[in-house]
Amino acid sequence: MSKGLPKRSEDYSAWYNELVKRADLAENSAVRGCMVIKPYGFSIWEKMQSVLDKMFKDTGHSNAYFPLFIPKSYLSKEASHVEGFAKECAVVTHYRLKNSPDGKGVIVDPEAKLEEELIVRPTSETVIWSTYKNWIQSYRDLPLLVNQWANVVRWEMRTRLFLRTAEFLWQEGHTAHSTSQEAIRETEQMLEIYGNFAEQFMAMPVVKGKKTANERFAGAEDTYCIEALMQDGKALQAGTSHFLGQNFAKAFDVKFANQAGQLDFVWGTSWGVSTRLMGALIMAHSDDEGLVLPPALAPIQVVIVPIFKGKEQLELIREKADVIRKQLLAKGISVKFDDRDTQTPGFKFAEYELKGVPVRLALGARDLENGTIEIARRDTKEKKSFKIEEAVTQVESLLTDIQQNIFNKALKFREENTTKVDSFDEFVKILDTKGGFILAHWDGTSETEEKIKEETKATIRCIPLDAKEEPGKCIYTGKPSTKRVVFARAY
Amino acid sequence: MSKGLPKRSEDYSAWYNELVKRADLAENSAVRGCMVIKPYGFSIWEKMQSVLDKMFKDTGHSNAYFPLFIPKSYLSKEASHVEGFAKECAVVTHYRLKNSPDGKGVIVDPEAKLEEELIVRPTSETVIWSTYKNWIQSYRDLPLLVNQWANVVRWEMRTRLFLRTAEFLWQEGHTAHSTSQEAIRETEQMLEIYGNFAEQFMAMPVVKGKKTANERFAGAEDTYCIEALMQDGKALQAGTSHFLGQNFAKAFDVKFANQAGQLDFVWGTSWGVSTRLMGALIMAHSDDEGLVLPPALAPIQVVIVPIFKGKEQLELIREKADVIRKQLLAKGISVKFDDRDTQTPGFKFAEYELKGVPVRLALGARDLENGTIEIARRDTKEKKSFKIEEAVTQVESLLTDIQQNIFNKALKFREENTTKVDSFDEFVKILDTKGGFILAHWDGTSETEEKIKEETKATIRCIPLDAKEEPGKCIYTGKPSTKRVVFARAY
Repeated sequence: MSKGLPKRSEDYSAWYNELVKRADLAENSAVRGCMVIKPYGFSIWEKMQSVLDKMFKDTGHSNAYFPLFIPKSYLSKEASHVEGFAKECAVVTHYRLKNSPDGKGVIVDPEAKLEEELIVRPTSETVIWSTYKNWIQSYRDLPLLVNQWANVVRWEMRTRLFLRTAEFLWQEGHTAHSTSQEAIRETEQMLEIYGNFAEQFMAMPVVKGKKTANERFAGAEDTYCIEALMQDGKALQAGTSHFLGQNFAKAFDVKFANQAGQLDFVWGTSWGVSTRLMGALIMAHSDDEGLVLPPALAPIQVVIVPIFKGKEQLELIREKADVIRKQLLAKGISVKFDDRDTQTPGFKFAEYELKGVPVRLALGARDLENGTIEIARRDTKEKKSFKIEEAVTQVESLLTDIQQNIFNKALKFREENTTKVDSFDEFVKILDTKGGFILAHWDGTSETEEKIKEETKATIRCIPLDAKEEPGKCIYTGKPSTKRVVFARAY
Repeated sequence: MSKGLPKRSEDYSAWYNELVKRADLAENSAVRGCMVIKPYGFSIWEKMQSVLDKMFKDTGHSNAYFPLFIPKSYLSKEASHVEGFAKECAVVTHYRLKNSPDGKGVIVDPEAKLEEELIVRPTSETVIWSTYKNWIQSYRDLPLLVNQWANVVRWEMRTRLFLRTAEFLWQEGHTAHSTSQEAIRETEQMLEIYGNFAEQFMAMPVVKGKKTANERFAGAEDTYCIEALMQDGKALQAGTSHFLGQNFAKAFDVKFANQAGQLDFVWGTSWGVSTRLMGALIMAHSDDEGLVLPPALAPIQVVIVPIFKGKEQLELIREKADVIRKQLLAKGISVKFDDRDTQTPGFKFAEYELKGVPVRLALGARDLENGTIEIARRDTKEKKSFKIEEAVTQVESLLTDIQQNIFNKALKFREENTTKVDSFDEFVKILDTKGGFILAHWDGTSETEEKIKEETKATIRCIPLDAKEEPGKCIYTGKPSTKRVVFARAY
């Protein structure tokens, strides 16, 4: 198989685009900005979904489904919300086509115009809170802990597969609580879950923090986020959790009777991660040979490639391989035995490297004689022969080791690419040379943040939750600051 | 809890609507024709999804995801397809809103008009076959076996929760094959899977058959279906599997090189079931007290209701209940222990009846003394006391028994409501008195079929796959016929 991936060091962006296509993850569709998620890519997303879904359910959340369409007037009910989403939404205005007068094709039927236009949901706060109004009467109905897996549309002008697409898949949690404290605890809990998912399953270290006012979700009081660092030194926001205060409750008049019988507005949260995580996963670990997948999310964890001449040899190898395959399956490890006779072993090796399969076993006629098997790991590309009886235990420990190793590697990369700076000159220099996370003092104003962004394209990724109190001066204005924030150029 | 469900015998339609709402399955949203699937309803749909998804994967299919939007011109590429869907589709014409001149709310920005309008997918054949063109070059790329779980939109004018909604959730399989025979085998295999799912999991007997030309999917050569009979004597189409011939391959120019190196068009199938199955499930088994769920799809299979006065009693009961709960969980049975002290046991009994929980255990202070427990089954409403040690084995066999019993009951109902008729007078009389499936001879023409439909509102549900050859005369025209078809009024 001809890979010919561009090298990361030469053209990171081309490398990413080619990798996404060649590893059969996704491709652009005929519809501007909308992608097709291919079966192999989708199987990784399904793994992510199943892990996250369990985490949500284990913390008391249930799934539900709300309409794809939002009446235009709903969007306007929360002032900053409409401000944030009106400029990039798909609008349904008609509900019928008819044959065109020239008989070629169809046109929109002007008589089938909707009284009120519908917006394809860019996010569902408005339609969900309009529903919650009927679900919530008293404190007994709270907390209401609901999640939805859905597609959403934001009409982005510049799109990139997984990272920024007009339509994307996501989950959006929407919860309602009787107190501010409880809603904040929920917001923090979901951030914690996202952080654990990123680190333990995606093997991707993240900084947990709060967004500045500028970068907050449109309609939130506070936005928490996890931020990851990609191999090109740019940051990627991998998940957000919003404390909505009483904003949407007020916009949609959602009140509850507390235990004393008094009416009050409900407190809300929302939180989401999307198919953008696929982009993060790809960029965090992969190399010039292709994908590197963490075993915890790899659809195929182990592939067995037989090295054979003729059917007879293949059958002898299959017999041995089958024993190993079944033992691995019994341990919950997914295994593929690739017996295609249309491709050479070399082709297959390259293909599974491209697709990021964590462990590859090769079994040939000589191995059968010697009672050996070759085990190769994708992350470090090391390979070694073992006695065939050891295969299963070796694979098991290797999978654990790979998961840990790629996390460690990403963490080391982040540490090496996180720089404390104390002057604006230094800030610009670091940005333009190595990039990465830059820890710097900032005076706390939106004005300064915007000026820095205009001049350098760097934004404040977050105010880390674990930032230490440390007196300093804003790198831009020299005004006093009490802690460092994380700056970076970002996806 | 005040149920006050309408009685089926008095107003079947009102009974259905109220049941869907009161059992927390779904409700109408603020958007015309779009529903909100509530958490309890969604958890049943999730069970259906997970069973079906496994069935699809076990037969070699993979999931993928294709765009929500379809360019208007794509829809027109297959002539009968556009004919079938153009009249009821949501059309996106703009991609931005802007503030209205009066400062109140937002309006569609006339400057943000799309060059080509986009249709919100009513089904995805067109966008998928346009993609397959690039995925398929040779016989080695076939068969291509892909499924998608997605939302689709059909602008229905008269909607009913689950049964007919503007937006609904479904799965749509789209496969491509190198021979006609293989595609037909796939079409039949998927029908078989749908039939097994309906009968073994939904406990709902179905007739498998082929649609007449009139009722075929727009763009198919042949449409296979499963048809179920509801308690009001109306039929419900519960799933369809289409043999597409080379229609979409020709429309989108999808060719492959066969083993001899010759180019030919690919053969296709598509098949789907939707949230309509929820409507079928509800109507097939439920009664005037509420839902009756088959254990195989019940989100909560067993509920334990403690009968207690005061905390101390509750804790003693909880201790006993916990042992049972854990034993049931270990057997993969889902159990809820309802320890709310805000509701009486009587209220809880009625609530779980309404929600269709198959088995209810009640455990009180006297039971603790006597070492007994009360076990009630939802389907027959029988209850009986057992020794507490027997609880787990009793529940286990009861769940199997309930699954079988509600299937048998539905089958018996169908048998009693399937009538052979040999004259049109008799046909009309049966339709207007008992309804149900009517087996009658038909002359095979669309004309006759349409006339019967106009006069009686009954349609040919299907030509059963297992229909016996039997010479007869069309009930409408008297022309010769070789087998009976299934007529019914339908949802």
